[in-house]
Amino acid sequence: MAQPAYNLRIDSERLRADFDALSEIGATVGGGVTRPALSNEDLAARAWFADRIEEAGLHIKDDEVGNLSGCLPAADPDAQTLMIGSHLDTVPNGGRFDGAIGVLAALECLRRINEAGLKPRYHLEAINFTDEEGAWKSLFGSNGVIGKISAADISDTLHDNMAFRAALHRAGIRLDELHRARRDPASILGYLELHIEQGKRLHEQNLDIGIVDRIVGRTTYNVVFYGEAAHAGTTTADERRDALQGAAAYIIAAHNLITDGYPEGVVNCGHVAVEPDSFNVVPAEASLRIEFRHPDAATLKDMEARLIGLARDCARRYRLTVTTERALHRAPERMSGYLFRQIETACRAEGARCAAIASYSGHNAQIMNQMAPAGMIFLPSVDGISHNPREHTEWRHVEIGANILLRAILQLTV
Amino acid sequence: MAQPAYNLRIDSERLRADFDALSEIGATVGGGVTRPALSNEDLAARAWFADRIEEAGLHIKDDEVGNLSGCLPAADPDAQTLMIGSHLDTVPNGGRFDGAIGVLAALECLRRINEAGLKPRYHLEAINFTDEEGAWKSLFGSNGVIGKISAADISDTLHDNMAFRAALHRAGIRLDELHRARRDPASILGYLELHIEQGKRLHEQNLDIGIVDRIVGRTTYNVVFYGEAAHAGTTTADERRDALQGAAAYIIAAHNLITDGYPEGVVNCGHVAVEPDSFNVVPAEASLRIEFRHPDAATLKDMEARLIGLARDCARRYRLTVTTERALHRAPERMSGYLFRQIETACRAEGARCAAIASYSGHNAQIMNQMAPAGMIFLPSVDGISHNPREHTEWRHVEIGANILLRAILQLTV
Repeated sequence: MAQPAYNLRIDSERLRADFDALSEIGATVGGGVTRPALSNEDLAARAWFADRIEEAGLHIKDDEVGNLSGCLPAADPDAQTLMIGSHLDTVPNGGRFDGAIGVLAALECLRRINEAGLKPRYHLEAINFTDEEGAWKSLFGSNGVIGKISAADISDTLHDNMAFRAALHRAGIRLDELHRARRDPASILGYLELHIEQGKRLHEQNLDIGIVDRIVGRTTYNVVFYGEAAHAGTTTADERRDALQGAAAYIIAAHNLITDGYPEGVVNCGHVAVEPDSFNVVPAEASLRIEFRHPDAATLKDMEARLIGLARDCARRYRLTVTTERALHRAPERMSGYLFRQIETACRAEGARCAAIASYSGHNAQIMNQMAPAGMIFLPSVDGISHNPREHTEWRHVEIGANILLRAILQLTV
Repeated sequence: MAQPAYNLRIDSERLRADFDALSEIGATVGGGVTRPALSNEDLAARAWFADRIEEAGLHIKDDEVGNLSGCLPAADPDAQTLMIGSHLDTVPNGGRFDGAIGVLAALECLRRINEAGLKPRYHLEAINFTDEEGAWKSLFGSNGVIGKISAADISDTLHDNMAFRAALHRAGIRLDELHRARRDPASILGYLELHIEQGKRLHEQNLDIGIVDRIVGRTTYNVVFYGEAAHAGTTTADERRDALQGAAAYIIAAHNLITDGYPEGVVNCGHVAVEPDSFNVVPAEASLRIEFRHPDAATLKDMEARLIGLARDCARRYRLTVTTERALHRAPERMSGYLFRQIETACRAEGARCAAIASYSGHNAQIMNQMAPAGMIFLPSVDGISHNPREHTEWRHVEIGANILLRAILQLTV
């Protein structure tokens, strides 16, 4: 049942001032931000965030993987915690909204609740997760919280993680303590995250808010076609076993397979290289890196099988061999139905036009969802532009979203 | 009219011993050779060649671009020179025959003529040209002889030629003297070169010898497709402007265009790279390097126009833009008809099965042909394999070819 306290509103001007101040840290000439995790700029942003937490009279908390939080404790020290957050790091020359707006909105919610003298029954924690974007290791901070980061992840011998280890050390993060960032699942009530969509569905459908019901799974493959190096002049077309011909056919065919057969699926080939990489030598090897995403686990698996089969077909057609190696896999996540409905209720109360939406990008919420109920609120991205200085979200949508976040927190805890 | 002197034969065992000794210089484990121009191994091969020249009682000559020759002078100091040669440098882990066999056969011919006490009416010169393979600058030595190399070629500011300049310096080649390697065209009677085919036409047709009538022209292009970088998860297929899709379509289409429409043409794409080269970002740029060859100048030009048109078609189809930049062009060469007939006469006298053949690789002969009549004798390459340790030519073909070379020299000069 709705309480009057649920009508508390965020201070939009203060949130805007925070946003503008934060956008200065690592600002680039084109209006973007460069604040990769553990960089000087990221450390400066964290220091700035710590100042805001103190200023607001909240408790500062940091953990062994570098996550930084502002906390509003409940009266009962044994109460569960509702975590609300996102990330302050960005991709190089990324946008100002991605991640940052979620952390600032969480902070603003706790500030308002604190100022209003409300006494939530659960601890509230506004958290900035370390390295969401993967400058070092994508979703590092949230994986630390669910207990999936340990020294072994940083010290592997396959990749040279020297620079990563140095960056962690400089940020005061100790390898032998990483595992201690793990929280007890029983201590967590849930996790809420406000984030920009980074796609154009909300914008095109003229919606104010998307409520994330699923986060896509993602699988990455290294696909290498092997032919035979040959003199580009003296070797006739029918004698050649040109690895790049097979790879090019695969790039087209994989795109067509997913576009035609999987309306909710996407595929990308973002890397290609040939050996011996000489303009007058027929390529002996062509290496691709492809990734594909789908919100449904079974369908993602089906896509995987057909993409592998397609690589073999292309190899056969061009008299090549091919190897396919699964490099990375993250399963699709179905978000908490309970939190979905809480956000939906808050949207109605705020008069926001909203719809269920699948997230096609990865988020800390999908990691937290493995440990506790998680919910996500998406804001429209103008023209769907993201990871780009031109990334933009209308401020009225930020305001609507932050008020929905605040209302959802109050519904859950007051 | 045939003279008895024309029946002089090479010493096959001596030639074989030279070949085996030379093959040791820069030998690789798989039976190949690594002797890139101006490397320690190349310099060692040149020193070894200089010893053979002296041993044979021939005159040593070197020039300002590092070409090294053994000379048998005519009685008349003002006589023209018949040059016979090839190159001692190799590609990394290349074969033992490519280039080397032509230099050694030329040396053997002069040795036999000298031993037989014959007095040719023209100076004879067995020449090793610097850097045929292009470790630094392809066909460097022969271009020097025709006056197309000067300090400006090495000192350009677009590319860092520091290492090249250092390598030349170490080999005793002075930048400010490069232009002096140019010979007076009136002083050259002609140029003959024995070389392996590096293709499989002679081998498959069971021929002993190919007489080169044409050397293909070659044009190289940098083709860059431009789209838009986008998030590989949140950007739907129809929103994307994926530069790699257009490039892949072009790789296939260019291959099909030339294979289907130009029976004597070849095309190769030996380099491809994308930007930003991240597996989860839709490629904004895809850069290709393509080269194409044809023995006929007009047809080569037609191929060029259609390949450019095709790049534009592919760009349009995928909503991309494209730039096409001509990087390199070498016109087709029609070899001297006179020398072709001289070699043909020699083949008949030696009972060799021969046929006219177009060369699909570049050779010093095509450079020399711009200055004086040039002729080329091709030996069969087993299975057409070249630039590879498995490159092989049957010794009986070397013997036949060297005897035809000797006979052609005698026809022309005795």
